[in-house]
Amino acid sequence: MIDNTAMQVFVFHTPELVPKGTPDCAVAVDVLRATTTIATALARGAEAVEVFADLETLNERSTAWPAECLLRAGERGGKQVEGFDLGNSPLDCTPERVAGKRIFMSTTNGTRALQRIQHSPVVLTAAFVNLGIVAKFIASQHFETVWVVGSGWQGSFSLEDAACAGALVDRLGGAGNDEAFAAAALYETWKDDLVELLEQASHGQRLLKLGCLTDLVFCASLDTVAALPRQTEPGVLVQALG
Amino acid sequence: MIDNTAMQVFVFHTPELVPKGTPDCAVAVDVLRATTTIATALARGAEAVEVFADLETLNERSTAWPAECLLRAGERGGKQVEGFDLGNSPLDCTPERVAGKRIFMSTTNGTRALQRIQHSPVVLTAAFVNLGIVAKFIASQHFETVWVVGSGWQGSFSLEDAACAGALVDRLGGAGNDEAFAAAALYETWKDDLVELLEQASHGQRLLKLGCLTDLVFCASLDTVAALPRQTEPGVLVQALG
Repeated sequence: MIDNTAMQVFVFHTPELVPKGTPDCAVAVDVLRATTTIATALARGAEAVEVFADLETLNERSTAWPAECLLRAGERGGKQVEGFDLGNSPLDCTPERVAGKRIFMSTTNGTRALQRIQHSPVVLTAAFVNLGIVAKFIASQHFETVWVVGSGWQGSFSLEDAACAGALVDRLGGAGNDEAFAAAALYETWKDDLVELLEQASHGQRLLKLGCLTDLVFCASLDTVAALPRQTEPGVLVQALG
Repeated sequence: MIDNTAMQVFVFHTPELVPKGTPDCAVAVDVLRATTTIATALARGAEAVEVFADLETLNERSTAWPAECLLRAGERGGKQVEGFDLGNSPLDCTPERVAGKRIFMSTTNGTRALQRIQHSPVVLTAAFVNLGIVAKFIASQHFETVWVVGSGWQGSFSLEDAACAGALVDRLGGAGNDEAFAAAALYETWKDDLVELLEQASHGQRLLKLGCLTDLVFCASLDTVAALPRQTEPGVLVQALG
């Protein structure tokens, strides 16, 4: 654990549970798969990832962007939106495909957490793949209050996001609420077998049925992607790693 | 773990998160302290515990009951309601005080969980003190669906209720949702040090500030009270132990 005794980390399992107010730093988590994909796309050279709650706004905004500089990534119910360049799989984000491109993304749940916290002074996204980098950055900033917001699934708790939030609490210390304390215990119990944890998660099971085992294994890997996704304007994330 | 593979146990951390529908069996949990006190009162011979969301209805209903056969138990913000016979401490429930009496009870949070599930065919209350008895009864009934509902604190997650719900999942098997799975991990991590867990919980810390350490230690004790509180009519719990 990083020594950071003044910092308090609060975990909220769904966007709906986020209270009013603004923390010093807010972190959106959607391990399966939006924030894993965002980290991967940025690490592989995407210029930015811009997230949208609905496909209509995405289509509208992407039309105004030079066609050769963009990719449209869309997922509904775990499947790629028809006619889009990408779904929500981090494995699709090869350097060949994403380098230099702006990715216009809309996912079932991943975008709601970001929307709920987009007015915080510092907004990041985290997943297991870039956990250490996000934790190290947060610790270096001496924030007093950090909110970690899970995306959940259609408004309810999500096991993989709770565990990832718990991993952040574990690294940063200072559980600010009961949710943070419990999330750290969940991570502590499962940290050596995150693939098994994701297979147990209801959304993990949903993805397995769709044939996404390799995605799941990728999303369960700790510290394998060098990305610090940070919001520059509402909904727009860029690589902020030095 | 009891072998009960057909049973699915769903955990909801607050009454607000309980979905529509009706399970075969619903269990309300408010470890600190309503459901610990209910179990203790019934084990020490109380005729019944009747719970109320508001003090006005409690006063109205208790007036219609023979004065020598009732006690009024009320708590707001951790403190005893003025003029009431009891607060919300299980330690006040001595046989001398409660035997043969109906306890009219209202607590800040404990009653809301019960209200939310009161129309299920079987309604129980559980705490650490009577966990084994409740688990054994549930297992013997071969229910398909069991809901465990935490009381939380003013609408948010409560660590001690999550751990107690997790203990039920641990004993019964068959985590039905991600919350149940995570709750079981929380219990697994802390089962040998429940006093420490309750001291870490935000409501535990609130009670410690009010000088309630002995209450907290009592509420953290596993299987020390022989009670199976079961609802006979909405809001009325009686001892259903053989």
